[in-house]
Amino acid sequence: MLIGEVVGTVVATRKEERLSGLKLQIVKIIDMDLKPTGQFLIVADAVGAGQGETVLCAQGSSARLTDKTRDCPIDAVIIGIVDTIEIEGDLIFQKYA
Amino acid sequence: MLIGEVVGTVVATRKEERLSGLKLQIVKIIDMDLKPTGQFLIVADAVGAGQGETVLCAQGSSARLTDKTRDCPIDAVIIGIVDTIEIEGDLIFQKYA
Amino acid sequence: MLIGEVVGTVVATRKEERLSGLKLQIVKIIDMDLKPTGQFLIVADAVGAGQGETVLCAQGSSARLTDKTRDCPIDAVIIGIVDTIEIEGDLIFQKYA
Amino acid sequence: MLIGEVVGTVVATRKEERLSGLKLQIVKIIDMDLKPTGQFLIVADAVGAGQGETVLCAQGSSARLTDKTRDCPIDAVIIGIVDTIEIEGDLIFQKYA
Amino acid sequence: MLIGEVVGTVVATRKEERLSGLKLQIVKIIDMDLKPTGQFLIVADAVGAGQGETVLCAQGSSARLTDKTRDCPIDAVIIGIVDTIEIEGDLIFQKYA
Repeated sequence: MLIGEVVGTVVATRKEERLSGLKLQIVKIIDMDLKPTGQFLIVADAVGAGQGETVLCAQGSSARLTDKTRDCPIDAVIIGIVDTIEIEGDLIFQKYA
Repeated sequence: MLIGEVVGTVVATRKEERLSGLKLQIVKIIDMDLKPTGQFLIVADAVGAGQGETVLCAQGSSARLTDKTRDCPIDAVIIGIVDTIEIEGDLIFQKYA
Repeated sequence: MLIGEVVGTVVATRKEERLSGLKLQIVKIIDMDLKPTGQFLIVADAVGAGQGETVLCAQGSSARLTDKTRDCPIDAVIIGIVDTIEIEGDLIFQKYA
Repeated sequence: MLIGEVVGTVVATRKEERLSGLKLQIVKIIDMDLKPTGQFLIVADAVGAGQGETVLCAQGSSARLTDKTRDCPIDAVIIGIVDTIEIEGDLIFQKYA
Repeated sequence: MLIGEVVGTVVATRKEERLSGLKLQIVKIIDMDLKPTGQFLIVADAVGAGQGETVLCAQGSSARLTDKTRDCPIDAVIIGIVDTIEIEGDLIFQKYA
């Protein structure tokens, strides 16, 4: 999985029927030094993440395996809101820190 | 998912049978500064997008999960026409703006 | 999908049983300026493409969804022979042009 | 598959239901000279790997095929703890060497 | 698919149960000038390839579709041992040449 920050939203009125009701978020992927990699993903949101939150994203066919995205023709989804990231014993990220 | 602009079409008369009737569009992928990333995708069109429109594309097995592309041997599909893109509170893209 | 030119063939006598009878082509991927991207794919051929032809290739699980490649353990397939590529109103490629 | 070193953990309290009980590890991918490639993956752990261990990771739909991760909406998993890596007759890595 | 040379092996005693009995090979991916691309893949071996052999590898869910790897949580597999590679009429590779 990849980790990133929710930085925005995409709205599409005309879309594949199964996307109705799904919120499409823009996630700025970050690396393990917490800096942006330059990659952005448009993802469906399975957990109700908000702007600025650090999230865990899955790609590929697993994007269709959450309760909210079952059988949707999407390829990326937010599966968790990150509380902490610990690397080599150091807490490098803590939500609301 | 990725976002891009529909810039052209590909026509193939001799093709796998299940592709019959599918429109193949060329999408120039853009990044979240709305500039081209240099990547192009050939995609099937599940929503009837037109030249110049900004579209949302899914890749992988999900490309076979729209009504128009069910079980087609394709790996990329347009699943929505983008109306707005908002980043950090700024409306950076609006259709017909 | 990606577009490329058939530039060669790979022969493997000792192989997974389900590959028997499949032609393995080498495709030089091109970009939308018709120049090589530097990427090559080894693909199964579902449509009978010949050396020098410009072809449409699908990757991933869809490679197993053509009549000729059903359930084969492959990850890339030629699904069409390109007749024309049109970008922003210009016909940039035409077969036998 | 890719090989990497377990360097940390990610904790997410609010997450897709099926992720409950899964440990999310951060793996620093290494190349065959045992140096970091710069790529990190967040993976579920199917084998109980510990910090500092060198592990084998699978990506894509196979991430859902281990006993611990069955049907979870994840795209990467640790499937083995590496004991030895041998290249051209040289033992370049040995656990606890 | 990709082509590469078998350069080594990975041994993992502690691993996902379904990997038992599978040989894990290290493949150095080569390009169509037969030079290494710098990419390495750890693959399961479905055909019994040996050190130094040039092999055809499939990635993704197809890795689980060979007789030896059915339902294994892996993402890459050797599906053939390459005898010849011909590009634009030139035989650029021949086994035991």
